[in-house]
Amino acid sequence: MTLSFQLDDLQNPALTAALQSVLDNKTKPQGSLGRLEGLAQQIGQILGSTAPVLEAPQMVVFAGDHGLTARGVSAFPSEVTWQMVENFLAGGAAVSLLSRQHGIALTVVDCGVKHDFLAGLPPGTQRPGLRVCKVAGAELGTADASAQSAMTPAQCQGAIQNGRDLVRSLPGNALLLGEMGIGNTSAASLLLARLTGLDIAVCTGAGTGLDAAAVQHKTAVLREVLALHSHATTPLEALSAFGGFEIATLVGAVMEAAAQRRVILVDGFIVSAAVLVVSALEPRVLQRCIFAHRSGERGHTLMLEHLGVQALLDLGLRLGEGSGAALAWPLLQSACAILRDMASFTSAGVSEKVINTP
Amino acid sequence: MTLSFQLDDLQNPALTAALQSVLDNKTKPQGSLGRLEGLAQQIGQILGSTAPVLEAPQMVVFAGDHGLTARGVSAFPSEVTWQMVENFLAGGAAVSLLSRQHGIALTVVDCGVKHDFLAGLPPGTQRPGLRVCKVAGAELGTADASAQSAMTPAQCQGAIQNGRDLVRSLPGNALLLGEMGIGNTSAASLLLARLTGLDIAVCTGAGTGLDAAAVQHKTAVLREVLALHSHATTPLEALSAFGGFEIATLVGAVMEAAAQRRVILVDGFIVSAAVLVVSALEPRVLQRCIFAHRSGERGHTLMLEHLGVQALLDLGLRLGEGSGAALAWPLLQSACAILRDMASFTSAGVSEKVINTP
Repeated sequence: MTLSFQLDDLQNPALTAALQSVLDNKTKPQGSLGRLEGLAQQIGQILGSTAPVLEAPQMVVFAGDHGLTARGVSAFPSEVTWQMVENFLAGGAAVSLLSRQHGIALTVVDCGVKHDFLAGLPPGTQRPGLRVCKVAGAELGTADASAQSAMTPAQCQGAIQNGRDLVRSLPGNALLLGEMGIGNTSAASLLLARLTGLDIAVCTGAGTGLDAAAVQHKTAVLREVLALHSHATTPLEALSAFGGFEIATLVGAVMEAAAQRRVILVDGFIVSAAVLVVSALEPRVLQRCIFAHRSGERGHTLMLEHLGVQALLDLGLRLGEGSGAALAWPLLQSACAILRDMASFTSAGVSEKVINTP
Repeated sequence: MTLSFQLDDLQNPALTAALQSVLDNKTKPQGSLGRLEGLAQQIGQILGSTAPVLEAPQMVVFAGDHGLTARGVSAFPSEVTWQMVENFLAGGAAVSLLSRQHGIALTVVDCGVKHDFLAGLPPGTQRPGLRVCKVAGAELGTADASAQSAMTPAQCQGAIQNGRDLVRSLPGNALLLGEMGIGNTSAASLLLARLTGLDIAVCTGAGTGLDAAAVQHKTAVLREVLALHSHATTPLEALSAFGGFEIATLVGAVMEAAAQRRVILVDGFIVSAAVLVVSALEPRVLQRCIFAHRSGERGHTLMLEHLGVQALLDLGLRLGEGSGAALAWPLLQSACAILRDMASFTSAGVSEKVINTP
């Protein structure tokens, strides 16, 4: 399986200089807004403006089930995936209320949940906030990656295409990416190990809350999976081998959002794994990605280091769903407001710096 | 000068257990919202509720001038203090727009700015958003602490009383504290050194942007000030000796807000110095304080360590004004929303954890 994916280089020295000049003339000591200034630079570059406006932000939660859960790699049963999708739709989950808090539209995508969310409804019925985007076979979740490839190449490509199509159908210029899938820290750990060469032991964490012995078991299972798929070495081969449908759909969503120059706000370990896959195909995707937080899940720190990026928040979150992206969102709005609305030394009649060495 | 200040112990085992039970039954793996859960616990304790509601948040920016600026300790001239107060009132400063972004009321307090904000106005005129709370003599800012005590004991006590009275006049149950005062990183560094015993060299930073040579000069001046006031060893003696009026008024505001069990959101280095003074009188004040961010100003890390607290954000901010408090504010709202609005496993029909060791 091959897939060609290329992006324009966003680096634009004239715009960089213009943005820096705007920031440096605001009524504050130069650089005193710290990482918010870098954030303003990045959003300005993505949206091509010194006065960027974030429009119609979309939180999209990609859900899928994982056959590998049969091997006891997660603390929660697989059925929690569909139950949590219902919780998202009912408005009771963390990502639901955090999205409401910040006025972010929430869409949940069934990429391969082992459940029929439209059961008993008349054909053609839509459920508000839900998109069903299952490739053929995805209604069972992925296959057990310790026995066979989690997805076929065709399924993987279909899921990526679904992600691209989905983003095309959404308004706005900012995408917040989240996920739900019991077992998906295993898939993310496998992708991290295969695409970086790190040992699976350092890539594997407690997920939803395994104890030490259970993490050891999970690590042994993942080591077995890696050995079974030793020939899956390209990003897309690894993605097919390890799954899941939600990560593959995320890969497509990241590609499309990046191509469209939307601001991409990446949640935690799983969404970062999708970005890792895309960045292995086209590193420029990172120009469009803002990493919301450093997760408490062990492998995320290594993943961020590998990508050479720094996350905005560091609150020990390990929930997923997009909760960290929602929590970081107001910082993006603040960065834009600083560029747009803050007074300059001249406009406010404030004296500039006079002393360096007295 | 003595001042007696005592607070009730907020620790309430029954409420702690009730809050933990609420958090643990939400539809998420236990502990997976990381530091947001500790934040929810703390706000619940302060407001005495498992369903806390933050009401009418008030951002208060305390402003004052410092006589020590005559010694070349700041990169910006003193007149920037009043110019920035005008900028706050006009809505163009960082704290202005960040407060607007989050629907936080903004009040600026002239605690001792060398400027008459009411000049030319009919007697009794109020300016929207401004409170003038100057003790006698404060219209000149503090005295040069390298020549004499920055404030007299009476001025210091008067400023503290002004802070208490001010908070009594403000609505709501949450206070965000900020400050403005050219030269006030010097006062905060002096307080840190005197009240912790740390050497002034490690307590002194670049402030609004001094270069290395200028920081060296600043450190030498501050060492001289410490020596001159070697007998100012109690928290309030140190506060009188080093200033400033805005820090003393902040001390009173923190005391009153703590006594009233308001949620206190502490901005950066200067506001933390006021909390340091209060905590030396009554450590329980820390139960009511949430530290918004770890500043890029050198001494702040040491101050947070001394207080034994961890800040929410770590973005290299070093602007002051209350900008970090405003940026952290939505995290407090999120913590309350999680307690109040998130579904439980039972209410959402989600299965609970089943596997530990397989």
